[in-house]
Amino acid sequence: MPSKSPVIVDLKFIPEEVEAALKGAFPDREVINRADTIHYNRNLSGIDYAVVWKSAPDLFERAPDLKVVFSGGAGVDHVLTLPGLPDVPLVRFVDRSLTTRMSEWVVMQCLMHLRQHRAYEALAAKREWRDLSQPEAADFTVGIMGMGVLGQDAARKLSVLGFNVVGWSRSKKAVDGIETYAGDELDTFLARTDFLVGLLPLTPDTKGIFNAGLFAKLSRNGPFAAPIFINGGRGGSQVEADILSALDSGLLGAASLDVFEQEPLLPESRFWQMPNVYVTPHVAASSDVKALFSHVEQQIARLEGGLPLQHVVDKLAGY
Amino acid sequence: MPSKSPVIVDLKFIPEEVEAALKGAFPDREVINRADTIHYNRNLSGIDYAVVWKSAPDLFERAPDLKVVFSGGAGVDHVLTLPGLPDVPLVRFVDRSLTTRMSEWVVMQCLMHLRQHRAYEALAAKREWRDLSQPEAADFTVGIMGMGVLGQDAARKLSVLGFNVVGWSRSKKAVDGIETYAGDELDTFLARTDFLVGLLPLTPDTKGIFNAGLFAKLSRNGPFAAPIFINGGRGGSQVEADILSALDSGLLGAASLDVFEQEPLLPESRFWQMPNVYVTPHVAASSDVKALFSHVEQQIARLEGGLPLQHVVDKLAGY
Repeated sequence: MPSKSPVIVDLKFIPEEVEAALKGAFPDREVINRADTIHYNRNLSGIDYAVVWKSAPDLFERAPDLKVVFSGGAGVDHVLTLPGLPDVPLVRFVDRSLTTRMSEWVVMQCLMHLRQHRAYEALAAKREWRDLSQPEAADFTVGIMGMGVLGQDAARKLSVLGFNVVGWSRSKKAVDGIETYAGDELDTFLARTDFLVGLLPLTPDTKGIFNAGLFAKLSRNGPFAAPIFINGGRGGSQVEADILSALDSGLLGAASLDVFEQEPLLPESRFWQMPNVYVTPHVAASSDVKALFSHVEQQIARLEGGLPLQHVVDKLAGY
Repeated sequence: MPSKSPVIVDLKFIPEEVEAALKGAFPDREVINRADTIHYNRNLSGIDYAVVWKSAPDLFERAPDLKVVFSGGAGVDHVLTLPGLPDVPLVRFVDRSLTTRMSEWVVMQCLMHLRQHRAYEALAAKREWRDLSQPEAADFTVGIMGMGVLGQDAARKLSVLGFNVVGWSRSKKAVDGIETYAGDELDTFLARTDFLVGLLPLTPDTKGIFNAGLFAKLSRNGPFAAPIFINGGRGGSQVEADILSALDSGLLGAASLDVFEQEPLLPESRFWQMPNVYVTPHVAASSDVKALFSHVEQQIARLEGGLPLQHVVDKLAGY
């Protein structure tokens, strides 16, 4: 029996977390962690597997024999745009923990806007005890664009919290207890939406979709009048110049952004310190690295056991 | 038929919200809104009903013939401590909206601590793009003290978000899917609790219950090591000097306080600007005033129709 193929690991995560998660992972094969300088000039030809997140641009050139590429996250746009992506299955990371974390972030952002957290923080900074007129979750409709695994989980949890929730996706999704729209029903969906949550993959169709034209179609009938934009998907889906002018003009009342057109967000960006914007550094659903390796182990075991891979990306659709 | 008794309204809420909610309320009887100066010297004898929240201390002296007192909130300690409380039914406000709002606040506080919101705000203030090691909800146990209507609703919602949840109450409560403790099982409950949520009524038994001795019994095994205290119940249940020293010494890692021993919180309080403390001005579950009046109308209709009142307080137990 030939010895088992090594696994290339090229993950731009917190290095210590990758190191820790690798302890005990892939017990029956070698791991080539590209963060480790001893592997810097290692010949990667003949290797079957790579687990990548914002990997080095020359990875596919250096590792020409990959049989499967595993994305370190739910999104795969960072892989699809790499030069020389081989024509082999690309597997996304789908995991209970990743889904749960995204919903934590989405629910927290919706609640912070609903409960006027920044306004109360500003009062506290002035040591001022004063209550603000407070609508409740049921007075708002959250509209989620992107009703895949992440969108459906967030929808269900927002709904339990008392929000009205509607969903939109490219193709129609039936979701228990949630009204859903698809394709060209977008305008109807937007007209109902007070808090817009973006959980879309980045594809040619979604590039720049969150722009001034779309914001202008959102509901202005909610208790806060101006709609709120919350993006936990991909920065490439948003036009940041439009978000800034929408916030300036009042077309948008507030925003929560975890993703940006260019990451890291530049220090000079106005987003960092706008009073009505929450910025997080692409951490809404950071992958649990142990869970990632366990998912990769399972998929490799399936493949080597003659079973089909799961969560394989449709490269034409881009997700 | 004698004309129907007026209703005295003495609610220290936002005055405009009370005014607005009174439009159309109690259509068949007079409303004496004590915030209205024309009623200042009004003779209140012979009147059957009063709806009160932090009412004037001389109310019961001035209105000696009340048949029912309605609390403007879920808590009734503000009524029980008023001089001259007549020996008539005291009815608490129980309402879907009030419950939902409290859960919004509790879930938001738990998520902000879990997701290290203040740490990310501090990074944003420095325009620094950096991710922090991030445990998930399932890595923490939230312990709720007070498993009445509010506690049970919060427990269910925290559980949906992925937190482990345990509950403690004076008398044993069976709650679907939640492990509950009662009475003298408090220490076992505390030893499991990473985030302690207080939703207790203020009674002689709960006065000062959140003190250094109790904090010392909380779990220090969670991912953040130091436990977190979140109080949405009553300020009288907490010993603020102990909370301050616990935060200083690290016995507590952080806190969220909506209620205080003395309200309004004094401007000189250190709580306002501590980096690991969220302060809100007793607004966690502000009553929806329209819903309050509709609840009072329903209870008066029951009483005058010969049916028993609902949500009557056990004055001996204090809730």
